[in-house]
Amino acid sequence: MTKSAAANIRPIHEHGANVLYQHGTLAQLVPGLLEGTTTIGELLEHGDTGIGTGEGLDGELIILDGVAYKIGQSGLAEVLPDDFTVPFASVHHAAFQYQCERADIGLEDLNRKIVEANGRANTFFAVIVHGTFSFIKTRAVIKQQAPYPTLEEVADQQAMFLGHDVKGTMLGYFSPLMFNGAAVAGFHEHFLADDRSIGGHVLDAVLERGDILSQVFDTLVQHLPVDNPEYRSHDFSNDPIAEAIAKAE
Amino acid sequence: MTKSAAANIRPIHEHGANVLYQHGTLAQLVPGLLEGTTTIGELLEHGDTGIGTGEGLDGELIILDGVAYKIGQSGLAEVLPDDFTVPFASVHHAAFQYQCERADIGLEDLNRKIVEANGRANTFFAVIVHGTFSFIKTRAVIKQQAPYPTLEEVADQQAMFLGHDVKGTMLGYFSPLMFNGAAVAGFHEHFLADDRSIGGHVLDAVLERGDILSQVFDTLVQHLPVDNPEYRSHDFSNDPIAEAIAKAE
Repeated sequence: MTKSAAANIRPIHEHGANVLYQHGTLAQLVPGLLEGTTTIGELLEHGDTGIGTGEGLDGELIILDGVAYKIGQSGLAEVLPDDFTVPFASVHHAAFQYQCERADIGLEDLNRKIVEANGRANTFFAVIVHGTFSFIKTRAVIKQQAPYPTLEEVADQQAMFLGHDVKGTMLGYFSPLMFNGAAVAGFHEHFLADDRSIGGHVLDAVLERGDILSQVFDTLVQHLPVDNPEYRSHDFSNDPIAEAIAKAE
Repeated sequence: MTKSAAANIRPIHEHGANVLYQHGTLAQLVPGLLEGTTTIGELLEHGDTGIGTGEGLDGELIILDGVAYKIGQSGLAEVLPDDFTVPFASVHHAAFQYQCERADIGLEDLNRKIVEANGRANTFFAVIVHGTFSFIKTRAVIKQQAPYPTLEEVADQQAMFLGHDVKGTMLGYFSPLMFNGAAVAGFHEHFLADDRSIGGHVLDAVLERGDILSQVFDTLVQHLPVDNPEYRSHDFSNDPIAEAIAKAE
């Protein structure tokens, strides 16, 4: 490749607004491959915005404006250090486009309208909803210790949080159907209150009024923990991956 | 990100030996989304080695040492121009490592031993087998015209080629199970004879004697044709993707 061609390509794939970076896969969580194989510091090199989980399903992570937060079993958000380790996360460089304002709408309708507005269910995209939620229901899985249980086994070991009239940010990623397993097909959304009083993996919500912004990616950079012995040697062929995603996410 | 960090990361993701670049997905071929959405010229910017198919399933492509060849219904290989369009291809920058020599081995055993030698079935990797094949059976799909048929409908419209005592190169990509649909889980191998007299999608082979080389990737750069209207609007939810891959590949 010529030098000028290389210069042309680099921004598109590594630093562009059209790239979603994912470390690990959702499928790894199903049999309990929960060792942290990247760090917040490394993730922040690939984006200033994102979601994920910590080693051993240690909390629900949300990265906004280059700051990584964890919502653990207290429901309160704490800022994470760069060396916090992570088995699975999605991040990107924020360059959202304003889509519209919406009011008095439940999560399911909201998500359907976001997909319609994008006119595409076969691309990866990110969505930010910032506003006042008249109701929000989130969860945080409780940190597990090695040897790790399966995702199904930890399903009942999670803290649930309810909020009313909460100002905050919901950040979600939409993944196309054909990437179910690698990612969560459809939406995967985390929340953080402006005052950090509540957050986590979004189970349900009613938006009182908020701004919707979205960012479409044409490229997924999928990084795999190829040097992790448990990952490398695991036989995924009998794991109920689609079922576990449908149940847990 | 600091400048030094950026300089550090760029080669890893765009130019590194650890990156597999894929344009389009196998899933698109199943319902017949066969429009060419990238070009050989663009693909060569992402690698000097690869496999794919042309618009309308126009032949089986193999890229070796920066030269792209098409094996069409004649069975003979022809060099492709940069503007030849492609709906689905995988390419990478060759940096293969010598694995071993093998003799008198069938395709299935050979592939099993290659996976074992890599010690990992959960990573993307490329494999080159160069040597003399006492037997090789390949196919090339016959080019279709729009409106395109489904992959299943073209299954019986393919040319089959048999070769004996052929010197050549088999290039394959191995994809982890959780990426079936996006890619072909397991091996997907194309062949080119040294004298270009036979090639195509490998259906069966017996290696008389050959050198095995492999290259493991930790990153898949998956590029999607997000501006293609047919791709964007297609509903994949009822396509028999796993079944079609199992049958066609």
